[in-house]
Order: sequence, then C-alpha cells, then structure tokens
Amino acid sequence: MTVVEICSRAKANAAAIATADTRAKNSMLALAADAVLAESDTILSENAKDVRACTRPPQFVDRLSLDKKRLADMAEGLRQIQSLADPVGEVTQEWTLPNGLYIRKVRVPLGVLGIIYEARPNVTVDAIGLCIKTGNAVVLRGSKEAIRSNSALVAAVKARMQAGGYNPEFIQLVSDTTREGAEKMMRCRDSLDVLIPRGSPALIQTVVEKSSVPVIQTGAGNCHAYIEKTADIAMAKNIVLNGKLQRPSVCNALESLLVDAEIAPDCLPVVLGALHEAGVKITGCEQTCAICPFVQPATPQDYFTEYLALEISVKVVENVQQACEHINAHSTGHSEVIVTQSKDAAQYFTQHIDSAAVYVNASTRFTDGFQFGFGAEMGISTQKLHARGPLGLQQLTSEKYVIRGNGQVRE
Amino acid sequence: MTVVEICSRAKANAAAIATADTRAKNSMLALAADAVLAESDTILSENAKDVRACTRPPQFVDRLSLDKKRLADMAEGLRQIQSLADPVGEVTQEWTLPNGLYIRKVRVPLGVLGIIYEARPNVTVDAIGLCIKTGNAVVLRGSKEAIRSNSALVAAVKARMQAGGYNPEFIQLVSDTTREGAEKMMRCRDSLDVLIPRGSPALIQTVVEKSSVPVIQTGAGNCHAYIEKTADIAMAKNIVLNGKLQRPSVCNALESLLVDAEIAPDCLPVVLGALHEAGVKITGCEQTCAICPFVQPATPQDYFTEYLALEISVKVVENVQQACEHINAHSTGHSEVIVTQSKDAAQYFTQHIDSAAVYVNASTRFTDGFQFGFGAEMGISTQKLHARGPLGLQQLTSEKYVIRGNGQVRE
Repeated sequence: MTVVEICSRAKANAAAIATADTRAKNSMLALAADAVLAESDTILSENAKDVRACTRPPQFVDRLSLDKKRLADMAEGLRQIQSLADPVGEVTQEWTLPNGLYIRKVRVPLGVLGIIYEARPNVTVDAIGLCIKTGNAVVLRGSKEAIRSNSALVAAVKARMQAGGYNPEFIQLVSDTTREGAEKMMRCRDSLDVLIPRGSPALIQTVVEKSSVPVIQTGAGNCHAYIEKTADIAMAKNIVLNGKLQRPSVCNALESLLVDAEIAPDCLPVVLGALHEAGVKITGCEQTCAICPFVQPATPQDYFTEYLALEISVKVVENVQQACEHINAHSTGHSEVIVTQSKDAAQYFTQHIDSAAVYVNASTRFTDGFQFGFGAEMGISTQKLHARGPLGLQQLTSEKYVIRGNGQVRE
Repeated sequence: MTVVEICSRAKANAAAIATADTRAKNSMLALAADAVLAESDTILSENAKDVRACTRPPQFVDRLSLDKKRLADMAEGLRQIQSLADPVGEVTQEWTLPNGLYIRKVRVPLGVLGIIYEARPNVTVDAIGLCIKTGNAVVLRGSKEAIRSNSALVAAVKARMQAGGYNPEFIQLVSDTTREGAEKMMRCRDSLDVLIPRGSPALIQTVVEKSSVPVIQTGAGNCHAYIEKTADIAMAKNIVLNGKLQRPSVCNALESLLVDAEIAPDCLPVVLGALHEAGVKITGCEQTCAICPFVQPATPQDYFTEYLALEISVKVVENVQQACEHINAHSTGHSEVIVTQSKDAAQYFTQHIDSAAVYVNASTRFTDGFQFGFGAEMGISTQKLHARGPLGLQQLTSEKYVIRGNGQVRE
C-alpha cells in the first residue's frame, strides 16, 4: 500500500475507535500490553536485526535497542494509560440560551493522528496506547533504522487485538521509510487531522516547513534560569545543577543562566564553580568571564543553542526586565525559571515570560506529563495553538458543540 | 516596509499589548470606536474611491461599500467587545502536586495574529477590536479592492489611540496586496503565531496549502439536515426553510437534506413543495425525483457542493446510520441537524456526526458567536485543532503553565 492508501485506511477505521466505549478501549490496552510481553522473543529478535544493521553513533543505537526490561516498561506504560480517565465524552461547558437551546461542549477524538518519529521503538507503543485511550486512529511513521522493531511491535499488538475480537485497523504503520514517503504523509490533509513530529530539531523543522496537515510542534527547549538579586543562592545552585546535570539530553534541561549584576560576584563563583567541577563547559558574557576565570567567552549564537549536553551559556543582566527581554528573544518557548524571594519580581517574570511553563523557585525538569500528573504524554508542545506544554490525553482530543432544541429557528 | 518587516514590527510591539491591563485595553477600544465615527468623512471618501475603482460583481461591491450606518455598526461592535469579559489572565485549571509544586494554567494572548481576508472593510475593524481585547498584535492583509478603505480605517484608529497615549504599533496593515505579498506572510513563522484566512473557499484553500504559519481554517459549510422517521414534519419543514432561506449566502445555511425512506412519501412533498414554491432549485436521488416531479436528478458532485444560494440537494436514506455515513463522507464539518422525536436516534446522531456543531431539532443557522452568546466572533473554525466552531475571545488565546515552588528539584 502507498502512504496515501495507508492514511486513508486509518481514516476509514477512525469512526469505530472514535465511538468505542471506555470498557472496549481499556480492554484493547490490556491486550496490547499482553502482546508486547507474549511476543517478546519475536520482537527482540527483529530488534536485534535493526541493531545489527545500524551504523549510527552509540547513543542512537542505545535508543533503538530493546531488551526484556524495556518491553516490560512499555507494557507497564500501556497499563497505566488503561488506569487513566477517558477524556472522550467529557462535557467541558454547558449553558442554555434565552431561546431555550441547550448547548454542551463535548470532548471528542481528534480523528486521525500522524506521528513521524525517529529510532525509538517505545514511541510506537506509547502512541498506540495514547491513541486507543483517546479514540484516535493513528498512522505511525518511524525511521528506517527501527522498521523491523516497529513492524514486530505493531504486528504483535494488532494480532492480539484481532484475536480479542477488536478491529485493529485504526492502527497503521507506514513501511515506506523514504523521505518522499514522509513528505507524502505531510500533504495528506484528506486523511490526517494532525501531525506530531517527535525527534530532532531538524526533523521537527522539516515537518513544520513542509506539512499542509496541521502540526503540533514539540520538543526544542532552550530553557533558562534567572537568578534574581533577592534569590537564596543555595536554592539557586540546587535548581541550576538539577536543570543542567540530572538529564542533560532532554528538552526540559537547562541551557542558559542569567544572573543579576548585583549578586553576580557572590553568586557566580558558587553556582558556576559547582557546574565547572561537574565537568560542564561554560561560556559567558564579559562580566561572567571577569568573575570566573574558567569561563570561555560566549558568542551570540551560544545564547540560541540548545546544547543537550554538559554545556551552558551565562549572562549577567541588570534586572528582571532585562532578563525577560533576553529570554523572550532567545528562548524556544519551553520552560524558564526565576529564583527569587521577591513577589514583585516573580509576578513580573511569570507575566512577561512567553513560554509554555514558567517556574518560580523550582527546576525546569518538572515540565513533563508524568510529573504534572497527566499520567502519560506524547511530547511537550512548544507552540501556542491547540495545546501548549505536555501533551496528555486531554490534549489529544478536540471538542464539538451538541445543541438540543425543540424546533427553534433563527429570526 | 516589506511584508516581513511589517510582521516583525507587529511582533516587536506584541509584548506591550499582551501585558496591557483590562482598563487600558477597554480604553483603546473606546478610542477606536470614537475614531471610526469621528473620521467618517475621510473613511467614506476613501471608500468611495475603492468602490469607483472596483469592477467586480454587484454582490462584491455591496460587501465593499461603507455608509454612515455601517460605520456606526462597526463602532457599536467595538463597544460591545469593550463590554465583554477579558479572557487574558483567567486561571483555567490549578492543582498542587504531592511535592508541593502549585501549578496554574493561565490564559494568555496567542501573540501575533495574521488575518488574510477579502473586500469587507468591517473585518478590519472587527479584527482590531478582537485583538485589542485578547492582547494580540495583528497583521491585517485585506484585498487590493479595499486598500484605501482599510488604510483610512487603520490610520484613524491608530491616530486616535496614539493621541490617547497608547502605542498603536501592535496593529499593522499590509499595503502590499499582491499574491506574492500574501505568500510571504504565509511563511512568516518567525513573527506570526497564527494565520486566519477569512473569505472564499479558494482563499482558504490557498492559505491552508501554502502556509507554514499555523492556520485556523474557517468557513466552508456544507451543512445537512436529516429528517428522521419519527420527526414532527411541521417542525422539520420550519427548520429546513429557515436553514435554506433565511440567509442563503452564509456558511451555516443548509445545503443538503436527507430524509428517512419510511416517511419520504409524506414528508418530501410538504418540505420540498415549500422550498420549490420559494424558488429553490432542488436536485435529488432517484427516490426523491420519483416522489416530487419538480426535482432534478442530483450528480454525485451535488452532494459535495456548498451552494450558498437558493439550491439544495436531497437524498432518501434507510436509517440514522446511513444518514451519518453520508454526512460524514460529504460534510465540511461545520453544522448538521437531526429532526427527530427519538432519543436513541438523537443520541446516535450527536455521537457519530463529526462536525463542529451537531443539532437536535433546531436550525443550523444558530452556529454563530453572537447566537452562542460569545458576544463577538472571528469566523467559524471547521478544523479540529485549537478551536472548533465560533471563534470568540476565548478561542483567540493560548495558555501557559505558571508553577510556583520553594526549591523543588527532580530526583
């Protein structure tokens, strides 16, 4: 089947999953979890072929590789989604007009989701689980390096759902992993309601540029911490170290640090000293370099860079206004934090920063569907349309108005 | 200034309007209303030049033409927006995590809205009003036929805001009305957060195809009425006549009628007889033609057609399932109605129809921001992302998470 045929097959099966009840959807989730465990030998052997054929760097191969533990985590993820509340059918607003019309706004599935992603087979299973629960059909397009793993996972899940009496054809995997295939998917407005790219900035940029299907942009996080002059320096140090060191390769990790000029001489040696000791490469403005001799001069580009590694850029600023201006000019709109004991500074920062998540005195590492209590997520949206921040179940739905009358017509 | 420079100028002034308080925004709305009235001579004289230069059909010229009454309506619209609640800053959800983090989800402006529209100068003023209230910067790109009118309106509003002590540069009008100019705007992701096309299906289609800026698709309405077998035929006739006749040129007008086979012989002569008498051209399926000799055979294309005129397509169906299948296959996802006295049929219809507004026993003509009680609207969204149905103030906002802690870091 061509990519276009695959997308239209998902669409043809979208109505059935959209109107499935919670009991049926939970039962499908349980069957999917069972399938991942029961077929683990086949899945691991197909994954081993992918891994053997892969010539990419070790970090890439690590994300591609599956083992029993990772399969068990996938199955556990599906069971967690099973335990979450079903968002479909929820009435989010209701009112009656003076003419007697009773209007309800009801949560409904989006329809058909397309997911374009890289070589992480767990995305395949996450996406299937989230789409089952939200009543969405899904077209999965992973990268060529993971095609055997993805095929084995999808085949296992669909076979078990079929054996359990459910039609699994709302789940479709694109086996054409060429660039042309992906671009066809991006133009498939007739069948796809939304496209979610998950992966590198380059992948996301391509999808955003080429897609005529509405896109939910996820991922890039050039996250900032701003240490305001009233900050508790010990707290600031903790928050910065956590943001930079706890997991440097993820989108909510810290990439840039701003410090108030008034406290820079006291604060920078403590905070940057600890980062330096932890092996972080630090670039900074002139003032920063003057205070901490181990800091290299930053280029303008450094302040735009999402390192995703043990690197950080530093700048001394005059006040919270200047901090907000710098952040809004350089950020990708993901997560930013102010460390402060001033209510006014906190208020100014949270009002003026234009990012999905704005923190006062806590690590940016909390921007995450699980940490926020959503139970599951499909990435972090950094766009302003539809959904901003972690994409939980609720964010994978749309709404419709259901209006009941007794013959009202318009005057 | 080039289109790109104009968009980036709007963006440079977005933060000021985004953080303006309700009092300031209401004061700007009052100044804008005053300006439209105080400068009416200049505006009408510039509009007269547009009208004289226009070689398009009379219906088009009518939409372009302004007079004292239409200017008074514009000013009244601005004052109505002034009286509505400010959506910005509203806390839509809040919760505290077990670790003590307090999360609030807060409504914020989208940022910079681009509006591409045709020769209706009232859209210029509506868009300015809605954007002031929602704290959004706006880039207005009307058609070349209305450029003098739009320039005069925007100049009047901005001058009066400036005189009142407000910086009006968050409002920008694109004077380059070429196709190339519009296409540049569609690629202006760096400055525009969302693009809303308002106008003909061809305009909307072009924007959807060519835009890399996220689009909110509005407008097209191939709306259906389905008369179920238990329907009150007098009520059905009222609803169909209202949908087709009350204002045929708008998107929530009725374009297609489905009737249950069981009642078709009684129902069709009554309903179609009245439409026929009112001068409506009717095309129908074989059964419809057999029952009503004045009906012409429908082509498959007729069922996809949004006539926006005194024309309607008719089809006899077996049951509610077949009605829903036909509607979901042919509709543009705007508004549909079932006329029925059966709770089960109503339930099936409202659950299975995949459109923005689904009615039971009321006219589709109610799908409208004013009718729904939103007080103002920027068109009707027929897409599923971000906002579906009438775009009121709330739909022109995004949200951000504001998280307060006391030093929490991630384990």
